[in-house]
Amino acid sequence: MTDAPTFDDVRAAHARIASHVNRTPVMTSRTLDGMLGTHVYFKCETFQRSGAFKARGALNAVLQLSDEEARHGVATHSSGNHGGALAMAAAERGIPCYVVMPAGAPRAKAAAVHAYGARVIECEPTLEARETMLAKVLAETNAHTVHPYDDPQVIAGAGTACLELLEEHPGLDAVIAPVSGGGLLSGTAIAAHGVRSDCRIWGAEPAGADDAYRSLATGALVPRGDGSSIADGLLAELSARTFSILREHCETIVRVEDREIVAAMRFLFERCKLIVEPSGAAGLAGLFAFPEVLPSRIGVILSGGNLDLETVMGPNEDDR
Amino acid sequence: MTDAPTFDDVRAAHARIASHVNRTPVMTSRTLDGMLGTHVYFKCETFQRSGAFKARGALNAVLQLSDEEARHGVATHSSGNHGGALAMAAAERGIPCYVVMPAGAPRAKAAAVHAYGARVIECEPTLEARETMLAKVLAETNAHTVHPYDDPQVIAGAGTACLELLEEHPGLDAVIAPVSGGGLLSGTAIAAHGVRSDCRIWGAEPAGADDAYRSLATGALVPRGDGSSIADGLLAELSARTFSILREHCETIVRVEDREIVAAMRFLFERCKLIVEPSGAAGLAGLFAFPEVLPSRIGVILSGGNLDLETVMGPNEDDR
Repeated sequence: MTDAPTFDDVRAAHARIASHVNRTPVMTSRTLDGMLGTHVYFKCETFQRSGAFKARGALNAVLQLSDEEARHGVATHSSGNHGGALAMAAAERGIPCYVVMPAGAPRAKAAAVHAYGARVIECEPTLEARETMLAKVLAETNAHTVHPYDDPQVIAGAGTACLELLEEHPGLDAVIAPVSGGGLLSGTAIAAHGVRSDCRIWGAEPAGADDAYRSLATGALVPRGDGSSIADGLLAELSARTFSILREHCETIVRVEDREIVAAMRFLFERCKLIVEPSGAAGLAGLFAFPEVLPSRIGVILSGGNLDLETVMGPNEDDR
Repeated sequence: MTDAPTFDDVRAAHARIASHVNRTPVMTSRTLDGMLGTHVYFKCETFQRSGAFKARGALNAVLQLSDEEARHGVATHSSGNHGGALAMAAAERGIPCYVVMPAGAPRAKAAAVHAYGARVIECEPTLEARETMLAKVLAETNAHTVHPYDDPQVIAGAGTACLELLEEHPGLDAVIAPVSGGGLLSGTAIAAHGVRSDCRIWGAEPAGADDAYRSLATGALVPRGDGSSIADGLLAELSARTFSILREHCETIVRVEDREIVAAMRFLFERCKLIVEPSGAAGLAGLFAFPEVLPSRIGVILSGGNLDLETVMGPNEDDR
């Protein structure tokens, strides 16, 4: 139940998905490096297919299904990027996809699911309603469910972003990634330590939803509680599997306030011209808030860019 | 007075500025290619230093000044990206820079000038006030003035973006760039035709400020008139020099409406996660509005990304 993927799994995932995903660019900012006194390398998964790193894990899982497993399609519940990623992966394999989405999910994320031809089933915005509806969908369709993070293949896929980053910049002293359910950070850690055993692994987590921080601090898996954050993608909680991986690999979890996340988004937008959703900007917020002197070369996973455009340019008249 | 730079000038410019500018990424969108039935290659000058292609021309000019010419610094009037680019180039050379900016210029563009340590001199938002104030600054400082586009070295520098694009994608059938004073489109044309003589060169111009369209259509340089556009960077008019270059190289000017520019910005934001200012999105708007069947491989220069963030995330509390 708590199987962790290995570095070989991450490399195998990369070979499997490479032709299906974008090799996202690594970007730098002279202004930022001057401000922080270090060199920062942004792995821009904002430019990944479906707009987030989630494409990597979803594809790695979907491409490994047997034809028999795949025949009835795949299903998940998701308020966000995993739904879009699974829809994309299913379209790539040519199988049906069902995404249970809570009312109120970011419009950009629901639109991505639709755009890839998946069927969206709306439900009430509670975990119970989501699970009940997904069970109903699975019973009706016989679809295969792909978990957003508590799955060794999803974690191995997520790690391929860091693998690419370290292929291009093997000398990184540290890598920071946002932590929610812990899939991205777990994959990142396994990839980084596979390349460079002394690379420091940091997570960035909203202070309002800091179960990973508290779990690692106390050594016991604690539930998230009812906190909240502007980072709508960082509200899941660790699983036994990701907790176990992070205990082994992760040096520290930096807690970031919503205003620090907004400042990071603002910096990325204004100075780097990068559209990064709140969850995606948590890593940079973590560097801004980092309590110690930073080492020389730091990788930052910008995990996704699915931000609602209405907040930018006003509603599209076509949509009215 | 109407000297045009040559392809050799563009190559020399590239050698001169390469270590000072970003080699900006070329990006693609499967969604867009499917929509248009072609392959589009975005040259993302939005990621250029100072946030726009203007860095290339400003650096090419400033790096060629003699020490004597450079000693008193450089000056220009600019409501936009040329001011930020000249400020960056002056900082790179370690000389003073004075930028006359009209009241009401986009805040992001004024902020860039400040950030590079240049002195901003505000004036009334009329061309007359700008020129009067610049003359005063030049008289007081003995600074060297660098024109935003009517300068062979600025044009040659602007052409280096297309040179890089064609180095990576030599088979492009056409390249489209926005046209304002014509410096970018002229440099783009000289670079493209230096690499591939049958590459089609297109300009995209706001329908509300279409002096380039009318000049090429009538064969006589016509002034801009008092039209307007959301594309605040596309309100200059051709010079005799750029008119002459475009008559030789440019196949067509596509006129785009403001709503088409907004649709292009929206697509780039939502689907490509690219922050592109209205002027920078004109090339894509031109493809959306193109009156003929598009050829197979088209380069699009996304010229800049200096968009005011207030429209996105509300005012920064720190600025109040």
